[in-house]
Amino acid sequence: MTGGPAADLTIDRLHGSLDDPAFESMNLLNEVSADFPDAISFAAGRPHEGFFDLDEVAGHVERFRDHLRRRFGGDETLVRRTLLQYGRTKGIIHDLVARSLAVDEKIDVDPEAVVVTVGCQEALYVTLRALRRDERDVLVVPRPCYVGVTGAAGLVEMPLVPVTETSAGIDPDEVARVVLAAKAAGRRPRALYVVADFANPTGASLDREARERLLDLAAEHDFLILEDNPYGVFHDGTERPPTFKALDRDRRVVYLGSFAKTGVAGARVGYVVADQRVSDGAGGTALLADQLAKIKSMLTVNTSPLAQAVIGGKLLANDYSLRAANERERRVYQRNLRQVLDGLAARFPAGSEPRVGWNVPAGGFFVVLDLPFPAGDELLRDCARTHGVLWTPMHHFHGQAEPLSRIRLSFSSLTSEQIEVGLDRLAAFVHARCAT
Amino acid sequence: MTGGPAADLTIDRLHGSLDDPAFESMNLLNEVSADFPDAISFAAGRPHEGFFDLDEVAGHVERFRDHLRRRFGGDETLVRRTLLQYGRTKGIIHDLVARSLAVDEKIDVDPEAVVVTVGCQEALYVTLRALRRDERDVLVVPRPCYVGVTGAAGLVEMPLVPVTETSAGIDPDEVARVVLAAKAAGRRPRALYVVADFANPTGASLDREARERLLDLAAEHDFLILEDNPYGVFHDGTERPPTFKALDRDRRVVYLGSFAKTGVAGARVGYVVADQRVSDGAGGTALLADQLAKIKSMLTVNTSPLAQAVIGGKLLANDYSLRAANERERRVYQRNLRQVLDGLAARFPAGSEPRVGWNVPAGGFFVVLDLPFPAGDELLRDCARTHGVLWTPMHHFHGQAEPLSRIRLSFSSLTSEQIEVGLDRLAAFVHARCAT
Repeated sequence: MTGGPAADLTIDRLHGSLDDPAFESMNLLNEVSADFPDAISFAAGRPHEGFFDLDEVAGHVERFRDHLRRRFGGDETLVRRTLLQYGRTKGIIHDLVARSLAVDEKIDVDPEAVVVTVGCQEALYVTLRALRRDERDVLVVPRPCYVGVTGAAGLVEMPLVPVTETSAGIDPDEVARVVLAAKAAGRRPRALYVVADFANPTGASLDREARERLLDLAAEHDFLILEDNPYGVFHDGTERPPTFKALDRDRRVVYLGSFAKTGVAGARVGYVVADQRVSDGAGGTALLADQLAKIKSMLTVNTSPLAQAVIGGKLLANDYSLRAANERERRVYQRNLRQVLDGLAARFPAGSEPRVGWNVPAGGFFVVLDLPFPAGDELLRDCARTHGVLWTPMHHFHGQAEPLSRIRLSFSSLTSEQIEVGLDRLAAFVHARCAT
Repeated sequence: MTGGPAADLTIDRLHGSLDDPAFESMNLLNEVSADFPDAISFAAGRPHEGFFDLDEVAGHVERFRDHLRRRFGGDETLVRRTLLQYGRTKGIIHDLVARSLAVDEKIDVDPEAVVVTVGCQEALYVTLRALRRDERDVLVVPRPCYVGVTGAAGLVEMPLVPVTETSAGIDPDEVARVVLAAKAAGRRPRALYVVADFANPTGASLDREARERLLDLAAEHDFLILEDNPYGVFHDGTERPPTFKALDRDRRVVYLGSFAKTGVAGARVGYVVADQRVSDGAGGTALLADQLAKIKSMLTVNTSPLAQAVIGGKLLANDYSLRAANERERRVYQRNLRQVLDGLAARFPAGSEPRVGWNVPAGGFFVVLDLPFPAGDELLRDCARTHGVLWTPMHHFHGQAEPLSRIRLSFSSLTSEQIEVGLDRLAAFVHARCAT
């Protein structure tokens, strides 16, 4: 063959989402972590590794295999086919997921409305892909917001309409104003994305009244609520309000589920509950779940049945209760949360300089700190190098490049010792920074 | 809460791809298979199940675990973290995949240019998502074509420009004409999707001259070649021409790989090799693989490391050669192919009525039949009910609703006995149909 010009591309010929700050955020934060492997990291919202056990995982697969044997009356060919062949697009543990939702959350759904996905991120993508028909369709999101939401919306070119989220959560009145303004501008707010319990990054939770108010608004203004619930299990032991989905009376809520924190992160299994009925305009109706499955069939075909077996076996081992399965983890996260809060109070006493503030969430993985100076990516790199501690600049969750005077601390994957040393380093960094 | 209107949606408010015939095809074919579970199915292009072995799969995971142990100098914490925690977006078996490509295909790539994906379908999606910037960007595809390509393009709203594929393959001259015509119409043909060996559904292969000609065209007209190679391993034992990627001298080829047929379908692991250099317009360059990884991070975050361990272990067990690992399977597929071809010749002798023709591929999973009558979805259902045999109407691969007088027979997952009985039933169906 003849030598043509070099095949190199330029970024301005690739999809615009690749320029989106959300995509850069994920990348940049991974890079900083990789560049400072020995720093103590308050950056990654990863599950605790203390109970990781490969033999237990193998046991989960065996347990699910036995479950299939019983289901198929001992037919080993069917067992092997179910685990090793291409499989059902909507998944093979949909029934176990539905039972788990009934046991843990009193959510009552038809297993056929469950689509098992490659983590919650794929659940989010397929839902947004379905809802974004043209440029008028928009998604209402809290600001600050988990960057994966911004990213999935970017892939389908769905504009975001922000509502402010503080550590007290989002304000239903603002949601109503924002939705009306979007409609007045010719846009169609198709859904509100919300984490009702211990949101990322704010740690905020919504009380029952706010949840019911938002459900009313969804009905009044014809939008869906996309409820993402990765942290609800990790509470402080006091009674929680019901999830949006448990309160949902007229199928306004699409429920996004993750097993990354409660199951096994390395299985990459999540799901979406979409029991909405979709009319085909010719008299027929189907579940929204079936439309989402059509999208999934063109994206990942089906979720690895071997990966599903890990989660299925864990559900079987715990009588379908992820709350029961995660009691040890819940205690660790609560201990870490209290240790971070107490540690901050000891290092930054009220009324003293430098003035550092923080919120007090009741659960989840995150605490947000207010600092007396803007803390962006450059300062993060600086802090990692000179003080050996990592955190997440909050501007990433606002989809903006300018630094804010806020950072997010994740405490989920740290040990007690790491938290103590990490907070010491963080305090030294803040003092040093304020002294310059 | 007050009861709002029912939350039901209408399909015309959901994404347009859900109306795409490709999405309906997948669904409809699955439905027919589910409705006639006892029919002999020439419809599904699934791997042979005769060698499925769950203990062998567990052994692969163990072998990969040992491999990690050695890599991490016995640090079990790192081994557990690699397999059970969130992981590297581009994957953990990228190096093994690169070695396998060197051993089997003489393709020499930097492991950093490999992105491990959730099956080849995700590889295709992330590639098309990156290339489709605006409505001018189009994809050149063979017609007929695997519906997964049409589907992934539909998700990113990338128009398709067809070139005819016969059992002799695609014609480079037609590709040149089509690309020039698209450019003249203000469009940007970004890539040509092609299966060079035993294409689905035509069974066609391209000779070396056609491959080099197409590479020249890609250089001349500045488009990429997306080479998908799921069936190349399943040849007839005669020498194959090198893959496009092995012939690629100036990074014109993005190589899409699948382990569904050669590894373990239930692991759902594939990959993309994208060694193109992308300039950021500010003097920096990165691999296209890194841009694809950014998209993947917003789609599925990372491919299950437990699923990757299955494939990694299988590669290790076979000195990185999937050709060696699949010698048994290759013989089965070749035996089935010959049995189908001989069986057709015995049942529809040359010169006799009804006139039935077929192509004679040298490998792969598929044979295409020409029938003396149009064979669409209704007739398929009819045939399944009255004759107990399934096949795939070819119109699905043309993205059209009107039936063609052609059907695709898959023989990959059938036993010898099933093929004999299935061909008898098919012959009875054709005779009955011609008698009416």
